[in-house]
Amino acid sequence: MANAKQVSGKLEWRINVPDGTSNVIVPESDQLVNKAWLWLKGLLCGLVLKIWRFLYKAWNLGVAEPKKVIHGVKVGLSLLLVSFFYYMRPLYEGVGGNAMWAVMTVVVVFESTVGATLCKCINRATGTFLAGSLALGVQWIANKSGETFEPIIIGISVFLLASATTFSRFIPSVKTRFDYGAMIFILTFSLVTVSGYRVDRLFELAYQRLSTVAIGTSLCIFITMVFCPIWAGSGLHDLIVCNLEKLADSLDGCVGECFKDNKTKFGTEEGPSKRMQGYKCVLNSKATEEVMANFARWEPAHGRFNFRHPWKQYLKIGASMRNCAYCIEALNSCINSEIQAPDYLKKHLSDVCMLLSTNSSEVLKELVIIMKTLTKSSKIELLIGEMNFAVQKLQDSLNSVPNSFIGPTVSTLQAPNEANRETIPKTAIPSLMDVFPMASLVYLLIQIAARIEGIADAVDQLAGLAEFKLAKDENSKQKKPTNKSTSDKQDHEAMKTSPKV
Amino acid sequence: MANAKQVSGKLEWRINVPDGTSNVIVPESDQLVNKAWLWLKGLLCGLVLKIWRFLYKAWNLGVAEPKKVIHGVKVGLSLLLVSFFYYMRPLYEGVGGNAMWAVMTVVVVFESTVGATLCKCINRATGTFLAGSLALGVQWIANKSGETFEPIIIGISVFLLASATTFSRFIPSVKTRFDYGAMIFILTFSLVTVSGYRVDRLFELAYQRLSTVAIGTSLCIFITMVFCPIWAGSGLHDLIVCNLEKLADSLDGCVGECFKDNKTKFGTEEGPSKRMQGYKCVLNSKATEEVMANFARWEPAHGRFNFRHPWKQYLKIGASMRNCAYCIEALNSCINSEIQAPDYLKKHLSDVCMLLSTNSSEVLKELVIIMKTLTKSSKIELLIGEMNFAVQKLQDSLNSVPNSFIGPTVSTLQAPNEANRETIPKTAIPSLMDVFPMASLVYLLIQIAARIEGIADAVDQLAGLAEFKLAKDENSKQKKPTNKSTSDKQDHEAMKTSPKV
Repeated sequence: MANAKQVSGKLEWRINVPDGTSNVIVPESDQLVNKAWLWLKGLLCGLVLKIWRFLYKAWNLGVAEPKKVIHGVKVGLSLLLVSFFYYMRPLYEGVGGNAMWAVMTVVVVFESTVGATLCKCINRATGTFLAGSLALGVQWIANKSGETFEPIIIGISVFLLASATTFSRFIPSVKTRFDYGAMIFILTFSLVTVSGYRVDRLFELAYQRLSTVAIGTSLCIFITMVFCPIWAGSGLHDLIVCNLEKLADSLDGCVGECFKDNKTKFGTEEGPSKRMQGYKCVLNSKATEEVMANFARWEPAHGRFNFRHPWKQYLKIGASMRNCAYCIEALNSCINSEIQAPDYLKKHLSDVCMLLSTNSSEVLKELVIIMKTLTKSSKIELLIGEMNFAVQKLQDSLNSVPNSFIGPTVSTLQAPNEANRETIPKTAIPSLMDVFPMASLVYLLIQIAARIEGIADAVDQLAGLAEFKLAKDENSKQKKPTNKSTSDKQDHEAMKTSPKV
Repeated sequence: MANAKQVSGKLEWRINVPDGTSNVIVPESDQLVNKAWLWLKGLLCGLVLKIWRFLYKAWNLGVAEPKKVIHGVKVGLSLLLVSFFYYMRPLYEGVGGNAMWAVMTVVVVFESTVGATLCKCINRATGTFLAGSLALGVQWIANKSGETFEPIIIGISVFLLASATTFSRFIPSVKTRFDYGAMIFILTFSLVTVSGYRVDRLFELAYQRLSTVAIGTSLCIFITMVFCPIWAGSGLHDLIVCNLEKLADSLDGCVGECFKDNKTKFGTEEGPSKRMQGYKCVLNSKATEEVMANFARWEPAHGRFNFRHPWKQYLKIGASMRNCAYCIEALNSCINSEIQAPDYLKKHLSDVCMLLSTNSSEVLKELVIIMKTLTKSSKIELLIGEMNFAVQKLQDSLNSVPNSFIGPTVSTLQAPNEANRETIPKTAIPSLMDVFPMASLVYLLIQIAARIEGIADAVDQLAGLAEFKLAKDENSKQKKPTNKSTSDKQDHEAMKTSPKV
């Protein structure tokens, strides 16, 4: 498009130059038409390209998340069903020609998850009912107090109730659960009271509105729960599991990146570095988690989740995961920093650091299994014990650094030569400057281990609240080598009390 | 309440025992009445208490944020105004008795910020208009194709358009800006096409719907912009400024906490520890920022902000602030960790660390001033230079640690005795275990400095995009001591290139 415009601009210039160098002379009107044509063509091309891009994006989204396409089809289906009310005379007349309200209810109430739809339906029905009854009462009082006072009483009641209810929508407890209901309350109240002044068949109006809302909401609930239901609860569960996996991957990736040989540094594919960024999803998923947990509370028992599954605990797990992700973020920047740790220190700590990170991510992976199978794992305490043991080992090897390896006094930044270092006398003292990137890496690793224990605690609480059972294969395994596993457990319980940072 | 129930339960037991030990005999009916009365009283007390607590919360919210009360009053006022349509016969008949739609528009469209209201109004008007015209076209085609095909054509068109539009609401670009418009599009399209089959005055219906929507939206826009307008843009601006201040406070608080004397540790008030937690607000404000920036884009010029003020840049500033807050989070946990740095190291590094943190928070405070006054500051480069100089100084003093101070070989954890340490031979080598909490603290401080520079860059970009002017007093100051300030600037420009982590 931009190109076409430039070309047309140049063409025009060449024609307007009066020195005769240009031998193509075009009449002015033709020229204008030409210009307009090119402009139009550019515009059309741009528009087509934009639409094409939009459709391409939409297609990709549909392929990536077919659930969203299904939701669209479900809404279309419900609207089709509800519009039958218009075509069937008995149904249409049954609600006094107000079938419109049913259509409206379907459009407004149908949300992508079952929980959100239920929340809106219940809010809408309750709000409509409460406001309808209250409006009838106010209308009755206003009617009794004479023609002069009627509009005044109605006006004041509308003003006061609308103000108070609107304000109440800001109160957190109302906002999270009854926001939509409060809006519908104001809507119905003002519609019924205000139109009551004109429409004399007030009871009939209220009844019709209630019955059409009931038709619309029950249709929505039926369709959303029967055809490929999308549960907010399952979504939240999957999100947490996926985030746990991402956290384990990032941790593995980060520490692996730090301790890998320099030779392979340039030969890596895109894969691992993309995997390392997984913790960013964890950092950014707070809002989604909250919305989903809020809707999940409205859902009935579904899949492996009972009604009143402890969805709030998922928020705590999410918070502890974010807590851990903050540290991984710092670790990541530590690894990408310009100042690199001296090789002798790296080599010394490489094994223990890798051990700790492997143990830590194994704990995370076991948590993933617990969450996926909704069963308690007897292995988890063992793994946490191993992780804490690795922390202890890392601390020990830190203590032994100055005794086994003595680095150069001169900063390795100034003398990064391999040959040089070997010749430096063994009695020299390492500069703090040399060790501090490594020290903060180690510190962060230990912090991460402590925070992973926090995640494990939160998952354990969930297992208690939701009454997870022991896994079957775990049960059978445990029976056979009883003595060994209990002694093992004691060992690791002892390790659990090892000093933590 | 629970107490009352228990008492009544005991009473009942004593009476029912037939051994004559209880000499108070109450007839059974009285007993039941008594029980019911206590139960009712308990229930009522509980309810009153709940309502009281709710009102107390609401009152506190209203006192803390009077803007929310004002919003409630504004909604009440608009509803009152729009309900006049019902009382004035000429107005009421002008829209064919459909004044109801105007009431509905006001309730649904009125949001707390001007941007959100404008966004919804424009979405509603556009959606209604587009869907109305399309529905008329479909209706015309359906009418032409005979009575048998009419419901089929209409049904298919409703199904397809509703499905496609519902799906499109998932596409991010549509979701952020036109979500509400898409819903209104489906609503109007299905209402008009479906009711067109019954209501023969179709054009009239479409016209009435459009005119009532226009009345409702224009009333909303008028009231929201004229009476105490609440701007999403100003809100976003204030949020960012407030978060910058909190970040500076937390940094000061954290580092101050770490290096203060142990004697004063127990004498501190609640104040500083609460101030230290400010960074948590920064970590959690991503969703709010995004919503506000999205609405701010719809707002006209207001206060000191032009139309098309670069609101998107605020999101970048927010992201860089969160980046910095991650590090402060790690720093905070570093300070609260059980293992404390040895005192000799703390003393050695205390001054430089405090200098760096003071300089860093001064940069943040200068950024607050820039944002508050919407003026460029010539001081900011100087301050960043000073911060980088402090980073350099800290690195230098790290390098000099082993030469000037030699710590004990034995871990200070095991021998925290002051007297002991003085006698340890000066040639002993410090264990890595001793230095590593301090090292990570230092590393994080340097990281924070680097990330604060990132915030400064983002603010600088904003200043460029929004064409901030130089502060007046800065202009006059700069004119007098020209030579000094330029030479100073050069110094600090040189410092800026100091090695960073």
